[in-house]
Amino acid sequence: MLITRKAEFSASHFTARPDWTAEENARVYGDSANQPGHGHNYELEVTLEGEPHPVTGMVMDLKELKEILQREVIAPFDHRHLNHEVAPFDRIVPTTENVAREIWNRLAPHFPGGEGPRLHNVRLWETADVYVDYGGDEA
Amino acid sequence: MLITRKAEFSASHFTARPDWTAEENARVYGDSANQPGHGHNYELEVTLEGEPHPVTGMVMDLKELKEILQREVIAPFDHRHLNHEVAPFDRIVPTTENVAREIWNRLAPHFPGGEGPRLHNVRLWETADVYVDYGGDEA
Amino acid sequence: MLITRKAEFSASHFTARPDWTAEENARVYGDSANQPGHGHNYELEVTLEGEPHPVTGMVMDLKELKEILQREVIAPFDHRHLNHEVAPFDRIVPTTENVAREIWNRLAPHFPGGEGPRLHNVRLWETADVYVDYGGDEA
Amino acid sequence: MLITRKAEFSASHFTARPDWTAEENARVYGDSANQPGHGHNYELEVTLEGEPHPVTGMVMDLKELKEILQREVIAPFDHRHLNHEVAPFDRIVPTTENVAREIWNRLAPHFPGGEGPRLHNVRLWETADVYVDYGGDEA
Amino acid sequence: MLITRKAEFSASHFTARPDWTAEENARVYGDSANQPGHGHNYELEVTLEGEPHPVTGMVMDLKELKEILQREVIAPFDHRHLNHEVAPFDRIVPTTENVAREIWNRLAPHFPGGEGPRLHNVRLWETADVYVDYGGDEA
Amino acid sequence: MLITRKAEFSASHFTARPDWTAEENARVYGDSANQPGHGHNYELEVTLEGEPHPVTGMVMDLKELKEILQREVIAPFDHRHLNHEVAPFDRIVPTTENVAREIWNRLAPHFPGGEGPRLHNVRLWETADVYVDYGGDEA
Repeated sequence: MLITRKAEFSASHFTARPDWTAEENARVYGDSANQPGHGHNYELEVTLEGEPHPVTGMVMDLKELKEILQREVIAPFDHRHLNHEVAPFDRIVPTTENVAREIWNRLAPHFPGGEGPRLHNVRLWETADVYVDYGGDEA
Repeated sequence: MLITRKAEFSASHFTARPDWTAEENARVYGDSANQPGHGHNYELEVTLEGEPHPVTGMVMDLKELKEILQREVIAPFDHRHLNHEVAPFDRIVPTTENVAREIWNRLAPHFPGGEGPRLHNVRLWETADVYVDYGGDEA
Repeated sequence: MLITRKAEFSASHFTARPDWTAEENARVYGDSANQPGHGHNYELEVTLEGEPHPVTGMVMDLKELKEILQREVIAPFDHRHLNHEVAPFDRIVPTTENVAREIWNRLAPHFPGGEGPRLHNVRLWETADVYVDYGGDEA
Repeated sequence: MLITRKAEFSASHFTARPDWTAEENARVYGDSANQPGHGHNYELEVTLEGEPHPVTGMVMDLKELKEILQREVIAPFDHRHLNHEVAPFDRIVPTTENVAREIWNRLAPHFPGGEGPRLHNVRLWETADVYVDYGGDEA
Repeated sequence: MLITRKAEFSASHFTARPDWTAEENARVYGDSANQPGHGHNYELEVTLEGEPHPVTGMVMDLKELKEILQREVIAPFDHRHLNHEVAPFDRIVPTTENVAREIWNRLAPHFPGGEGPRLHNVRLWETADVYVDYGGDEA
Repeated sequence: MLITRKAEFSASHFTARPDWTAEENARVYGDSANQPGHGHNYELEVTLEGEPHPVTGMVMDLKELKEILQREVIAPFDHRHLNHEVAPFDRIVPTTENVAREIWNRLAPHFPGGEGPRLHNVRLWETADVYVDYGGDEA
């Protein structure tokens, strides 16, 4: 059984390597390399895998899941400029792929599996037309 | 090849165990334990797996699929109070997880695989922010 | 200038007059007359009319608007059975039309116009296919 | 007859007055005052009013409308930081209200009415939950 | 009070005048002039204006509205090629504007106002990015 | 890591075998067999599998992906009648299943895997209620 909860945050970013020239960054990243950056309403879908508890009928208390998402992702990312305010994006380019992996890394320790639910997938929509799915490196 | 059809039903429910006190139910289920209950526009996505028939080019006649969904799920669930009118939710708490499993159990016998399509997944959206996926216990 | 904020609540209802027989209610309201009722994820769009403040550039502080919506509509309606728990729906049939008017009546005193914003429209979606707009009786 | 075309741009902004202290800005604008800012996938709906041409049956050539939107709004706003790169937002706070009015001001000269279509409304969605409508000051 | 119901139909069309050359049609209508045509999932929003009935609390029986939409619009338009099978589009170019006006003309006699509801607006989406609103010529 | 990009095309089709009678086609395909056909706004989601490049942080340059989708699918399919203008649908019935497989066949050579991304899935929505997923015959 999989259960998925959505959340949203609004953040700025630009995608450019500090060790490259502006020309190199523009060639690889296009407009997305423009500084001081642009922004998105990122939509996040976090999927957990587990069995419904035989007594409660729930894989997980969704209120508790919401609090973890809020604390680990929404609070630090929302209304922020990722490159300037959210580690490790001062040194790692905040492409959608890298942001999804960072969200996975922040959430995975809370959902190790075993008796409780296991983090199964992080889907991150950058716009209404592009999204990334990440399920951990062993997936 | 997978083919998915959506359907929708509007139903009431509350999530509470009859053998618990109101306080216990409120602690575990929060507002969702309130009686006589609240409701949702549930959105259902039913996914079948199969090969397109070499002559018709279809995994399944979608009109026939619609009739099965209508008869097995929409007719008995729509405009009903799940706890009071739809077995087994008089004794099993109608969490999204349990409703998804019940829908699977009602549909699976119609799609056993073999020469025809096999039921692959049931996705049930309770709100625009939460959904469950169930693919049977052996999945 | 108009500014609109969305909110959502999940509630149960049935549409039936207590002074009618079950047959009369079924004839007029169809399945929606079924008791103990069914439910919806109601989506609400509240529209205010006003001029952006020359200093702040805002028609209204959206956080304050959110708090008013939460206190006057979401808190009393969400996870409730409208007919049984939310006045005046113990005596007024909670059709979408009547629920929209009640929401208008609860919100209008907070947005009287003059120097501040005026309540302009309440749009209430009952399902993804049906919605009602109400702008007050003098509109 | 009204015809509406949608477009989208991704931009950064923050809402803060340069003549106020950080504390004053935080009190009025909340998190939105954070610098260097956050961002949105802004969705724009531009509505024109006119009569379908008796020969072509069209209010306007939609391809031409798309080119005007692209040139006047999308090209200068998309993948930019509004406060730092798009006049007049270096001196006017880029609230949704002010951005909508600026878009109106840029588009209105192209749709003066008379024999051709007249700009009727600019709707700007900042997030999936908030939007502004602006129809000009004489509307 | 306004009440709106959505419906959908899938149809083919091309936009070209039979009295023009292929070159003239391509210049004015672009790709949309290609024959034998392309198609859309048209989405229709029909809005009625009226007062909720003091006894039933409804502007109109939505089931009856659905039947009228089905009979007057969906049945004759759905799964058809507008230019070849649906009058008057054998002689009037089926632009979105003209299709919306034809739908208005088919529906308006059923909603004349007076004691019952009056047809207020027809919104027709051709794609997710373009829609037309038509409220009758005297609107 | 999976990355998905959406695209849309508007096309006409009908589903009927030329070697069957009209009665046989109507019995199997229903209204969809009507000639000269109906149409859809097809929505396409193309999913690639790969590792983010250690230097750029991207699975693939999305602009390049967009160009491939445009050249291989959108340009030949958009504003066309599939049965009459797009091979192989002059001889293969353009059911959603068969159109999805054809799109896979056109895209797969561009994403062979190895050092670059591999085509993982093609999802094709025919309407808002029906979609097909195809991941190649060995998937």
